Amino acid sequence: MTTTQLIEQIHKKRSFLCIGLDVDLNKIPKHLLEEDDPIFAFNKAIIDATHQLCVAYKPNTAFYEAYGLKGWEALEKTINYLNTNYPEIYTIADAKRGDIGNTSTMYAKAFFEDLGFDSVTVAPYMGKDSVEPFLAFKEKHTILLALTSNQGAFDFQTEIVEGKELYKQVLETSKTWTNSQNLMYVVGATKAEYLGDIRKIIPDSFLLVPGVGAQGGNLQDVCKYGMNDQVGLLINSSRGIIYASQNGDFAQASAEKASELQRQMEAILLQ
Amino acid sequence: MTTTQLIEQIHKKRSFLCIGLDVDLNKIPKHLLEEDDPIFAFNKAIIDATHQLCVAYKPNTAFYEAYGLKGWEALEKTINYLNTNYPEIYTIADAKRGDIGNTSTMYAKAFFEDLGFDSVTVAPYMGKDSVEPFLAFKEKHTILLALTSNQGAFDFQTEIVEGKELYKQVLETSKTWTNSQNLMYVVGATKAEYLGDIRKIIPDSFLLVPGVGAQGGNLQDVCKYGMNDQVGLLINSSRGIIYASQNGDFAQASAEKASELQRQMEAILLQ
Repeated sequence: MTTTQLIEQIHKKRSFLCIGLDVDLNKIPKHLLEEDDPIFAFNKAIIDATHQLCVAYKPNTAFYEAYGLKGWEALEKTINYLNTNYPEIYTIADAKRGDIGNTSTMYAKAFFEDLGFDSVTVAPYMGKDSVEPFLAFKEKHTILLALTSNQGAFDFQTEIVEGKELYKQVLETSKTWTNSQNLMYVVGATKAEYLGDIRKIIPDSFLLVPGVGAQGGNLQDVCKYGMNDQVGLLINSSRGIIYASQNGDFAQASAEKASELQRQMEAILLQ
Repeated sequence: MTTTQLIEQIHKKRSFLCIGLDVDLNKIPKHLLEEDDPIFAFNKAIIDATHQLCVAYKPNTAFYEAYGLKGWEALEKTINYLNTNYPEIYTIADAKRGDIGNTSTMYAKAFFEDLGFDSVTVAPYMGKDSVEPFLAFKEKHTILLALTSNQGAFDFQTEIVEGKELYKQVLETSKTWTNSQNLMYVVGATKAEYLGDIRKIIPDSFLLVPGVGAQGGNLQDVCKYGMNDQVGLLINSSRGIIYASQNGDFAQASAEKASELQRQMEAILLQ
């Protein structure tokens, strides 16, 4: 999906919500454990109930790999279900990959070609030749970790490098890479006050913003500092939506939580 | 496997060679493509031919994920084959993972528990709470990216942070993390001249050193600057060994290449 098509969807649905599909078998309703594929059954129900309220879904690959082959199969079924039934949905493999050149090409093929995701998250530590293989794919986005939502972000990302924080160095340097127009960036909602400075460096790029909800980030603050004239934000919520209920009404409960966020987003878009 | 057991194996085999199992279906002998599982068939033949010459194997997960479910299945079969038939072998999942706390726990479970690897490579960009979940596993190692073998290492890793290079900051900071005794570090062989400085910061830790062979790193230089009194090195070669021949003799050819490196290592150990 192109950036233009994503923006169209945002305006059509009056939502820039991304729902994180981080499925933990210990947290899903017990009756689903009797299904052949409980992870996919859970995802399908959540997707069917919420797809009109969001523009993107983001499975975090860790939650699938932890269940081995069955997990990987559930990930394949989930992305296939989305691409077949809701092709207007933008899909993000939250994989945080990154390796030397030829190996990054293998990861890019895995997520863009084999699985068919629109985008993948990538870590910047190994530099240009670890990211450019992802950027080479047309109509696919590479979402680079910049300033993450966790406490550990302060260990290295905010350290001062040549007069500015490392994450700013990452933003500036990445702009010089080939096909940098295919970049988006991860900026945690828990760091909303940093968004003003970030927008000075990358005014036009889309930001994937995790950390609203369970992690304590605030939607209004993120939009105040991070929104640009093409919206430029995908706000992710995972646990706050998908685990709204552990009972038979879990899908409906997730839709209600998603709807709350969608209505707040609509109000902001119409301001 | 404990560090002590690994050191015992190194002295017993007079080798600190790690063989990278980065299987690309375009590069393996054509006759293997007729097998049910060409990737596993290739790995099994390479392992059977080389296991006495090396102490470790390192599948890079990208090469398995790129083939989807079949690739993941081949990875499972490979680690199971190693753990069942050659339990004295140290195993490394070269996955370069890293995410926020609860998600890193899922990755750690995937590689340490579900797959049964002895160690996994992890990226440091997200800091302490993204790495400590891996360190919490007993008798498992977390191999942190420090100074990688690629050109992109110079984009951020060697940038000066508070008077020293970022990779040195990573080394020093990581020493303060809980269970840091379970850390090893990735340092590329193409950066051998940096190893002296690195040893001042982490004199006792094991280093996983990729980049000897195809990438141009030199074994003698790596040992001169990087070896400590417990050896402290695992030298990885992937393409230089596993693709020594594309014909019916591929396994024997890989053993010859591995044997060349093993003999050089033996000479260094006996100096």
